[in-house]
Amino acid sequence: MQKIGAYYLGEGRYEFTVWAPLLSDLTVHILPDRRLPLAKNKMGYFQTVVDDLSPDSRYLYITPDSAELPDPASFFQPDGIETPSLIIDHSSFPWTDHEWEGIPQAEMIIYELHVGTFTEEGTFDGVISRLPYLADLGINTIELMPVAQFPGTRNWGYDGVFPFAVQNSYGGPFGLKRLVNACHEHNISIILDVVYNHLGPEGNCLHKFMPVFTDKYTTPWGKAINFDDAYSFGVRNFFIQNALYWLREFHIDGLRLDALHGIFDMSAKHFLRELAEHISLYSLHSKKKHYLFAEDDLNRTQIIEPFAQGGFGLDATWNDDFHHALHTILTGETERYYEDFGSMDQLVTAIREGYVYSWEYSKYRKRFQGSFSANISPKKFIVFAQNHDQVGNRPQGERLSTLVDIEQAKLAAALVLLSPNTPLLFMGEEYGEQSPFLFFVDFHDIKIIQSMLEGRKREIGEYANPADEKTFLASRLKWSSINEEPHKMLFAYYKELIRIRKTIAFDSTRITHNINNQLLTVLRYNLFLLINFSNTPVDYRPQLEDNWIKELDSCDTKWQGPGSPLPYYLPSQLVVQPKSACIYMREQ
Amino acid sequence: MQKIGAYYLGEGRYEFTVWAPLLSDLTVHILPDRRLPLAKNKMGYFQTVVDDLSPDSRYLYITPDSAELPDPASFFQPDGIETPSLIIDHSSFPWTDHEWEGIPQAEMIIYELHVGTFTEEGTFDGVISRLPYLADLGINTIELMPVAQFPGTRNWGYDGVFPFAVQNSYGGPFGLKRLVNACHEHNISIILDVVYNHLGPEGNCLHKFMPVFTDKYTTPWGKAINFDDAYSFGVRNFFIQNALYWLREFHIDGLRLDALHGIFDMSAKHFLRELAEHISLYSLHSKKKHYLFAEDDLNRTQIIEPFAQGGFGLDATWNDDFHHALHTILTGETERYYEDFGSMDQLVTAIREGYVYSWEYSKYRKRFQGSFSANISPKKFIVFAQNHDQVGNRPQGERLSTLVDIEQAKLAAALVLLSPNTPLLFMGEEYGEQSPFLFFVDFHDIKIIQSMLEGRKREIGEYANPADEKTFLASRLKWSSINEEPHKMLFAYYKELIRIRKTIAFDSTRITHNINNQLLTVLRYNLFLLINFSNTPVDYRPQLEDNWIKELDSCDTKWQGPGSPLPYYLPSQLVVQPKSACIYMREQ
Repeated sequence: MQKIGAYYLGEGRYEFTVWAPLLSDLTVHILPDRRLPLAKNKMGYFQTVVDDLSPDSRYLYITPDSAELPDPASFFQPDGIETPSLIIDHSSFPWTDHEWEGIPQAEMIIYELHVGTFTEEGTFDGVISRLPYLADLGINTIELMPVAQFPGTRNWGYDGVFPFAVQNSYGGPFGLKRLVNACHEHNISIILDVVYNHLGPEGNCLHKFMPVFTDKYTTPWGKAINFDDAYSFGVRNFFIQNALYWLREFHIDGLRLDALHGIFDMSAKHFLRELAEHISLYSLHSKKKHYLFAEDDLNRTQIIEPFAQGGFGLDATWNDDFHHALHTILTGETERYYEDFGSMDQLVTAIREGYVYSWEYSKYRKRFQGSFSANISPKKFIVFAQNHDQVGNRPQGERLSTLVDIEQAKLAAALVLLSPNTPLLFMGEEYGEQSPFLFFVDFHDIKIIQSMLEGRKREIGEYANPADEKTFLASRLKWSSINEEPHKMLFAYYKELIRIRKTIAFDSTRITHNINNQLLTVLRYNLFLLINFSNTPVDYRPQLEDNWIKELDSCDTKWQGPGSPLPYYLPSQLVVQPKSACIYMREQ
Repeated sequence: MQKIGAYYLGEGRYEFTVWAPLLSDLTVHILPDRRLPLAKNKMGYFQTVVDDLSPDSRYLYITPDSAELPDPASFFQPDGIETPSLIIDHSSFPWTDHEWEGIPQAEMIIYELHVGTFTEEGTFDGVISRLPYLADLGINTIELMPVAQFPGTRNWGYDGVFPFAVQNSYGGPFGLKRLVNACHEHNISIILDVVYNHLGPEGNCLHKFMPVFTDKYTTPWGKAINFDDAYSFGVRNFFIQNALYWLREFHIDGLRLDALHGIFDMSAKHFLRELAEHISLYSLHSKKKHYLFAEDDLNRTQIIEPFAQGGFGLDATWNDDFHHALHTILTGETERYYEDFGSMDQLVTAIREGYVYSWEYSKYRKRFQGSFSANISPKKFIVFAQNHDQVGNRPQGERLSTLVDIEQAKLAAALVLLSPNTPLLFMGEEYGEQSPFLFFVDFHDIKIIQSMLEGRKREIGEYANPADEKTFLASRLKWSSINEEPHKMLFAYYKELIRIRKTIAFDSTRITHNINNQLLTVLRYNLFLLINFSNTPVDYRPQLEDNWIKELDSCDTKWQGPGSPLPYYLPSQLVVQPKSACIYMREQ
């Protein structure tokens, strides 16, 4: 496979590689005044080696129509989009994580964060300053929302236009390297969200170099990426190289692939499978497992099934069905896709089997949805009570903690963190952040802003103006509340749940069932979780063998609850308090 | 699953079922003057039962905008498109094939024919009159080009607009039943070509009842069928019911699914898999195997892989790669997709492994193409030296027999008919028909004709006017030549090859190899085939054990060749004559 971008060869020499199969010639313009033509090979790759480059050399490519454009595989856009690219010597970073082995998937407790709003600085260094806090909470895996260069300084990250360039306002490539290195020093894995289903509407120049788009398909976010039409071989390579780039040059432990329902590929070998093959090979060669996680609105088990079953071989997938089942039980909401949810049975299915919609008819979608997944390890399903989409795609961006009372928030946390699935928290959830997480952008093209505003108004009925800086500022975490109650208690409560999760004997048999749509019980070999979702106490006879010792009760006064009457040893008959989560552990 | 159409319940009663989820009401208008409203269920199916219908009752549906339309699942359009539908009592046909077990896939020798041009009558009854001829030739499986009602009387069949109605000019549903029954009496299986990837451009009314199209994808032939968007559940059912309809009501033995690269489906369960599940179930219940064959320009093995491997579970697929490899060696052509072929190695790969392009880079397509298929039974690949597309999509519609000399035609026949794959002949090939097979249509909409003409001119550089009846007439088989030489000899030669094929011990080890790009040898346990493609004699040392007896030599004077010097017993060293196919059989 052909690497792309400008790689340092040592001694001031860089090799420039661009894929531009339809361009007749290409010249690299090293600012201010060196111009060198590149040679084109038969597959459409242009290359040249340039000597005597200083580390601060900036460059543009001159296309046959005399346009001067940044490198489509630029490693850094120090001044943002539509400005020269800066060369980067990746070998210069002083990594200290040579012993790092990564967190095994079965142990991951994932924390999703958005660099721009996680701290007041809005930078990678800001995140670094919070790593001791996250380590104290018990988090062992961070998932960064996308960091590929986007227009301006405020964006969720899904409007990136330079897939290889790390957002300048976040701290650029060396900022990200500092963060990854620091994570590994804190024994934290880091997953990066990458967007291979579309390119942002403003500042994209990829299509001026390569046939990156296809007209065969349409996506909700604009033109579909060309994964299967003429010249798709180079587009596929572009994105596979991108994935490898993060692992190799940034020591990223895994990737979260955004919205796979937006990747259209009819090829005999699906792009995702080809990608997974390359990541597997890279893991083999680097002697360290690297992960691919998926977001897929189609509930396709094929994505996480092994190659031998015709699968794409990814490691795990976000399970929105779990979220929707839990969210509707807690809030009673029935709008949009929540129409398809609302029963306790569905929540049980989500925990036990994965997809609730496993080729069932969906009223909201007016079609059949999803595939049967009960045969797949529960660890391959990533579950959450909040994430950037589920919070941010609400008209007012409310976090769950502002939609339900604190007792409900506590029981939701217990379910997510003690489920047999892989849990994911959304930044601020752990202390009940009250700020919204709204959709925000920093586009400069009025037409793009207008079309985006209209689109979101139509789909979501958006309230705040995404292009207004106030919307961004409102979405920033307000850490000041963390030392106030109930936030301080909530943080301690999350921390305790995470501690308990780490004591669970994994991969044990588990039984989950449901009585009167009030009480949910989860038995996991040495842990027994009882959750009463209702407003009334529920009588229950556990019928368990051995002795079980009370570990935590969310309605205990310790957690600022109304008080727990449950005894130390699990009795043969007990009353689970309204809106409470109660945990017993098997006596050793 | 919900049946659709107007089914006879007995005693003059018919049940009318239409899927029209977006229509508020629907009335069936039995001509001349009975109007009965249908009741709609929550999935969008309208139904009513009508009493006292005479067997010649015609009807239309009245939609809320007062349009009167034929039944989208009409069983018969006696007067063509845009006219009333006729009710059909399927139970009235006097089938005599109750003992019919069908031809096993491994034994199939397929003969593709177009009803309209196969005989002067251009009807199913015309085909029936030729069955003794086909049986005499040794054909045991007929594949009919599509017979779903199309506009006018002249069409390849891929412009059908009533998927359940049998073309009126061919003889309608009872004509087809007579043909199927007669085939079974002649010990011939019958495969029907069905088109589930688009609807014809003229006379289609399906979209006035149901959301049959989607804007998510585009096909070269117009709007893509909605297999995965909102309301796809009913579209999928429409086509699955169609497939079952042919098997159940017409005793069709299998279906050939046209152009699967035009079926776009991102669902967790692909339409083709769902279809194959239903056909499997039907085979189980009817205690008789029914087949699904594919045409797929993407060389996806997934289509013919079993469910457990994530496959769609179809039984076989047309292998264009075999054709192209053979065709280019014979003709030296390099236009269009022939650019990707031309080497003997590719022909060897096609015979031995299936796909030549098994995730290889295709210069013509400018992308990677196909999947590795060497692990798949060769019987799952249907091979041919001619078919309707490979002949008819040439600007002048020339059959192979008019492009190469007769010695080459004979060796091509030997390879197709003795390959370990499943052979398919195109009507007239067996006696070297000299007429072209051109593209022809009988549209009435000037705009549609114009756009079609332009499209084909652009893509194929078409010569004849498809809309001119002369083009159709020119494409009709000229059977008169069959009693003249060399046609009479060629027929006998094909017949002999088919006889020999039936003596091969199937599923045996086979070795195929290639020396100097002149000679191809195929060893199949008890058969040894040597083909010299070149213009010069080739020396060869077979190095086989046991005694091998000469069975056929295409250059023998018996086959009007220049004469064969090869001895009765296979010698340790022999000279294979130029442009000849020579067959030795292992002595028992």
